Amino acid sequence: MAATDDVPLIDQHCHAVLARDPEPAEFAGGLTEAAAAGTRDRWHSSLGLAVRRWCAPLLDLPAHAAPEDYLERRAELGWRETTDRLLRATGVEHWFVDTGYAPSPELSPGEVCGRGHEVVRVEQVAESTAGHGAHGLLDAFRAELRDRARDAVALKTVVAYRSGLDVPGECPSDRDATRAAGEWLRSGGSRLTDPVLHAWVVHEAARVAAELGLPLQFHTGFGDEDLHLREVDPLLLTDFLRTTRANVVLLHCWPFHRNAAYLAHVFDHVSVDIGLTLPFVGVRADDVLAEALELAPFDSVLYSSDGNVLPELHHLGAVLWRHHFGRLLDSWLADDVLDADAAERLAYAVGAGNAARLHQGVSPTPR
Amino acid sequence: MAATDDVPLIDQHCHAVLARDPEPAEFAGGLTEAAAAGTRDRWHSSLGLAVRRWCAPLLDLPAHAAPEDYLERRAELGWRETTDRLLRATGVEHWFVDTGYAPSPELSPGEVCGRGHEVVRVEQVAESTAGHGAHGLLDAFRAELRDRARDAVALKTVVAYRSGLDVPGECPSDRDATRAAGEWLRSGGSRLTDPVLHAWVVHEAARVAAELGLPLQFHTGFGDEDLHLREVDPLLLTDFLRTTRANVVLLHCWPFHRNAAYLAHVFDHVSVDIGLTLPFVGVRADDVLAEALELAPFDSVLYSSDGNVLPELHHLGAVLWRHHFGRLLDSWLADDVLDADAAERLAYAVGAGNAARLHQGVSPTPR
Amino acid sequence: MAATDDVPLIDQHCHAVLARDPEPAEFAGGLTEAAAAGTRDRWHSSLGLAVRRWCAPLLDLPAHAAPEDYLERRAELGWRETTDRLLRATGVEHWFVDTGYAPSPELSPGEVCGRGHEVVRVEQVAESTAGHGAHGLLDAFRAELRDRARDAVALKTVVAYRSGLDVPGECPSDRDATRAAGEWLRSGGSRLTDPVLHAWVVHEAARVAAELGLPLQFHTGFGDEDLHLREVDPLLLTDFLRTTRANVVLLHCWPFHRNAAYLAHVFDHVSVDIGLTLPFVGVRADDVLAEALELAPFDSVLYSSDGNVLPELHHLGAVLWRHHFGRLLDSWLADDVLDADAAERLAYAVGAGNAARLHQGVSPTPR
Repeated sequence: MAATDDVPLIDQHCHAVLARDPEPAEFAGGLTEAAAAGTRDRWHSSLGLAVRRWCAPLLDLPAHAAPEDYLERRAELGWRETTDRLLRATGVEHWFVDTGYAPSPELSPGEVCGRGHEVVRVEQVAESTAGHGAHGLLDAFRAELRDRARDAVALKTVVAYRSGLDVPGECPSDRDATRAAGEWLRSGGSRLTDPVLHAWVVHEAARVAAELGLPLQFHTGFGDEDLHLREVDPLLLTDFLRTTRANVVLLHCWPFHRNAAYLAHVFDHVSVDIGLTLPFVGVRADDVLAEALELAPFDSVLYSSDGNVLPELHHLGAVLWRHHFGRLLDSWLADDVLDADAAERLAYAVGAGNAARLHQGVSPTPR
Repeated sequence: MAATDDVPLIDQHCHAVLARDPEPAEFAGGLTEAAAAGTRDRWHSSLGLAVRRWCAPLLDLPAHAAPEDYLERRAELGWRETTDRLLRATGVEHWFVDTGYAPSPELSPGEVCGRGHEVVRVEQVAESTAGHGAHGLLDAFRAELRDRARDAVALKTVVAYRSGLDVPGECPSDRDATRAAGEWLRSGGSRLTDPVLHAWVVHEAARVAAELGLPLQFHTGFGDEDLHLREVDPLLLTDFLRTTRANVVLLHCWPFHRNAAYLAHVFDHVSVDIGLTLPFVGVRADDVLAEALELAPFDSVLYSSDGNVLPELHHLGAVLWRHHFGRLLDSWLADDVLDADAAERLAYAVGAGNAARLHQGVSPTPR
Repeated sequence: MAATDDVPLIDQHCHAVLARDPEPAEFAGGLTEAAAAGTRDRWHSSLGLAVRRWCAPLLDLPAHAAPEDYLERRAELGWRETTDRLLRATGVEHWFVDTGYAPSPELSPGEVCGRGHEVVRVEQVAESTAGHGAHGLLDAFRAELRDRARDAVALKTVVAYRSGLDVPGECPSDRDATRAAGEWLRSGGSRLTDPVLHAWVVHEAARVAAELGLPLQFHTGFGDEDLHLREVDPLLLTDFLRTTRANVVLLHCWPFHRNAAYLAHVFDHVSVDIGLTLPFVGVRADDVLAEALELAPFDSVLYSSDGNVLPELHHLGAVLWRHHFGRLLDSWLADDVLDADAAERLAYAVGAGNAARLHQGVSPTPR
């Protein structure tokens, strides 16, 4: 039995699943960060192999079932039964759900099993306050964010997708932010893209997060084609991290997971999450985790799946983590790198303990 | 038997070999990207070990033969017999030969075995049109490139070596390119180094490539000391990739192969080739390939050797790929990551299938 | 027996140890590059596991002893006996000690066993000449550095920590450097931070190093929170490396060790050292070394521990190198990548031979 086998998981960053049967092309679109309507076989990938290997047996199919058989059986069972089976088998006790992006219609994982908690996306709050005009926007954002944060487990920013992670160490002044808000509103005021206003939003969110004791999550590293990978290296946050008082969680990180690990090494208020990466890299999950653990303090590493639309992703996050991280720890035990107690402590810390310490009101089953 | 054993290979990027016996120092120079006349033992490297291990037996020597024994035996057999033995043992059916750089005298691999195809280096075409003057250069390049492209399998650019990969997303105007051509010609007009004219050349090449259905190959990642490694990260091509309609192949990539894999993940028209890297990293070929396969769609990964001057490099590309990628797939089979069918499909796709789909008139033996 | 077992080591970059018993918090501070007074358990890390596994038995404790048991036993033995045991077990014959940073009170490793050699930190020399005023500083630095260098084995710069590694290829003029010195002195003249003066200091140090046949070491890659990791990628030194005549040693390098390996590949006067990284990454030492050896010429790789304050770090550098690099070589032997002679040659080269060739008056036990 591996040290990861019975660790209760906190999936500290994920999204809702699609509450209907997906078309084959829609399912394939969930297996990639590329645009859905593409020319490549999305199943022919590390992630595709992982679905066939790990999810097929949950649907009573042999491991490595063909994609068409998988989709046929999935349709036969229906999306709800499929979702139930995949989510229940994760062993996740707490789901932190980013409500800033959701499929339609949606089902939140906590409605299936475990307990759900809300992660508030600060850009959504900012964009919802556009009606207050440039002069009212800052105060409206402050009020609305505090209000939304009251029931949340964490805040999250996608500034990586908009102006990149080169957020200045100092917060823009209210005057500059108000002026930037004016420009943004004149240009339409729908999707927040102004870098000055966005920097102000991130700093203000960090202030609220620090006040209320909530971590602020940053998307970093790979994602869909909207982002420019060079602009989402978490090292770009260095100046911001030097000044903020908030606990910061670096999400995803690949291929910059070693850089993220360094930041968690030198800054006690920084944690590193390798969600999203886990399902996507499949068999390579242990190597990527091992790279992060070179420098990352063991108390700084958090589990998540970043599962989204397809419950297969929530499932794979968990089983790949259990299987591959468990195997890594087994190999370390075999080489006498650590003893069984230390292996169990590390597995629990990453799977649940670190997230529980960082977030209020989240109590996983103790080790 | 590994899944890679009998895959017919398409070596989709290589060069001619030297058609005479090399001096020992010349041979050593072929084992490095450093200047030939150096102070270090070029054999004392991962590549040097690979030559001794894999090439020596082809010359009737024991594996791990000493460099001096290897060179003595090589001279005894003569360059032609050596070349025949090394190239025939690769199992390569198609060689895509970049004719923009060749040793003198040269022998093209397709004259030994398999079939050769030309890769046209666009900088060579641009430099050959210098005689037309600034006002004639653009049209001369357009005409000459279309002419040369007619019999080619792909185009290739070495803009990485000149102004780096930060090619703008929009093509410079003809007026700006003409002005830049004037400046370049006034400064001598031999080696194309003007960044504006070069950007125009790359965009025009991409236009021709898209029109004629040829991929456009980019040197990316490591190479000789002429390049600045920071300027050849394929991520610098992001803006260009967002606008081009050509199929783009990212060559070499190390140490940015994960970045290249990301680009291939989000852009269906981008492929990733890990040639050059394969012979140089020797025993590490499987780890580097595995890193690329984390995110790269399996249909986007192409085999090549980037063999050049020494047929040892063409040979090592193939045998290291077969041995190490085969071993990687075996370990995945042993861990039940995929089934035998999927392993064979993946091996064939990388070795030949993906390149065959991407290039016209190239039909490897089917699986 | 592994090929690394009886290699005499040259620890070509380390510091003095603390010559008294450390408080538990002080000891924990020695296990991290984060600020000493932090909130995280510094033992809960790859480095912490390595101390428990490898150092505890030297103190007559079982492997994996609990931190409190380790500290209790360490205090019982006393710092001097602990230091003796840990340093003697390294098999280091020569210690190159950077005297620019030392704990207080200090004990230099060469006073315990092996032979010590001084590495002169050029910033310390520059800062010590502030009293000469702007117009006297340049000459005073030149004279003082030559004087200090006479008995040194190498020079070292920490420009990475101040203005980053983007050192220009050309030395600033004396006039510009004098003007910069004036500004620096007016601003206090304690810690050298002016980028122009610093560039001049680095170029002048390289000139002295080339003249006297001493290597110039650069801190590169990770370190404490004072540095900005994006600014310490050794690739930023490319222009400087193209013009300097000095032998340059790139220290530490992580996570840029592949970039450093590339520089050592194309520049015969560049060597790469993976000290500091070794103790910190613990069980991952072989993977990091293997990544560096992909492109780094085997004659360019140097051993060091970067041990500092705690003799545990000097010890771990050596035992992790012996254990993990030995295991890597064993696996390569098992896969027939090289023969036993080549494995021994490589182990000796990295452990002692390359450093001996690069430094005057340092003769390890021959192989």
